[in-house]
Amino acid sequence: GRKVLIVYAHQEPKSLNGSLKKVAVEELSRQGCSVTVSDLYAMQFEPRATRNDIVGCLHNSEEFNYGLEAWEAYKRGGLSSDLVEEQKKVQEADLLIFQFPLYWFSMPAIMKGWMDRVLVQGFAHEFPNCYDSGLLKHKLALFSFTTGGSREMYAKGGISGDIRYLLWPMQHGIMHFCGVKVLAPHICFAPEYVSEEKRKEMLIAWAQRLKTLWKEEPINCSPEWYFK
Amino acid sequence: GRKVLIVYAHQEPKSLNGSLKKVAVEELSRQGCSVTVSDLYAMQFEPRATRNDIVGCLHNSEEFNYGLEAWEAYKRGGLSSDLVEEQKKVQEADLLIFQFPLYWFSMPAIMKGWMDRVLVQGFAHEFPNCYDSGLLKHKLALFSFTTGGSREMYAKGGISGDIRYLLWPMQHGIMHFCGVKVLAPHICFAPEYVSEEKRKEMLIAWAQRLKTLWKEEPINCSPEWYFK
Repeated sequence: GRKVLIVYAHQEPKSLNGSLKKVAVEELSRQGCSVTVSDLYAMQFEPRATRNDIVGCLHNSEEFNYGLEAWEAYKRGGLSSDLVEEQKKVQEADLLIFQFPLYWFSMPAIMKGWMDRVLVQGFAHEFPNCYDSGLLKHKLALFSFTTGGSREMYAKGGISGDIRYLLWPMQHGIMHFCGVKVLAPHICFAPEYVSEEKRKEMLIAWAQRLKTLWKEEPINCSPEWYFK
Repeated sequence: GRKVLIVYAHQEPKSLNGSLKKVAVEELSRQGCSVTVSDLYAMQFEPRATRNDIVGCLHNSEEFNYGLEAWEAYKRGGLSSDLVEEQKKVQEADLLIFQFPLYWFSMPAIMKGWMDRVLVQGFAHEFPNCYDSGLLKHKLALFSFTTGGSREMYAKGGISGDIRYLLWPMQHGIMHFCGVKVLAPHICFAPEYVSEEKRKEMLIAWAQRLKTLWKEEPINCSPEWYFK
């Protein structure tokens, strides 16, 4: 059975994001996958990258360098337990699903903090092992999110620009950098401004897509996909 | 005298980011500007958007919608005091400088949380008052940051793509959306991999730029600037 980690960032279980997460857990479990959820708000996940992430002495206590200290701590098994937990979940997963409402053309800070703190050097990448040779290669990722703006606003030539423009930092800058292959994003446009019936259709469409997810090919994660 | 708010996100005062912040405070003060710094890590700024941001009763306690609740709370003066403080600083500022190390093609989570929580509807934007008619029009913003990757990696055709690609969500998606005009970014590439002398030159270059900053024209914040 395949293993899936859903990293989920919404405060309200009754939200559409909450329902999308639930649908994914149900459908993937039905397929025989083993599904783990990191419910970031419920966990009160810490987004701030600080000295507290390193257990014990610092490599250089004269001048604190987070990236270096986290790397050193990873190598000697000295990262804080919440990070070790998350890294275990990532290590075991074949597929990472990120489920969130788009905040300011990106993920909510609590999820950005998950990226900043969990994907440390040594674990997720280690120069020159980045991009296609990143340490998390052979894994898949999928960004599933809701927007405030409409599909028209996020069209090419629309006021907010092609939605793909804003996927570059998340899909290429984070996932591809770690060697993870990226499946096409799943986007629910402006659910707050549509009928209850349309929202139900959004849930059904997501469940439908998940049925054949494992047959999908990753996108070609290069500038052409985003900016042409 | 002009007013400047520096939103600063680095854990270590002795870092290059710390020095860049210090240089900006000194140079702008010398010019007669009044400079305020929000030192996010020192403030232990909360990045998570939660129910704690709303004082008193919720508009809809059956289903928590952060954006809606923050908007309602703003209108009735019911946002938490840390947000009110930051909004006052923004309101008074002519120029916002964001000083940070690039984390994963974006700002550190603690700064993303500042965006998520401070720039609430009603204060920074209120449909249809967005983009050129955003509520923070007549203000300027400048993103000043350091990178891990080299200038070559962030060149067009480089492995990490044109550095402008990753500026789209921050400059257009956040600042332009609120009506803020954007000055050209200030980027120090890979300071960890250059000599102490080169790092000193980076500080001097920043101080030099600040001397004539008020004569600069904003960039044309449209897809052409980012993707051509």
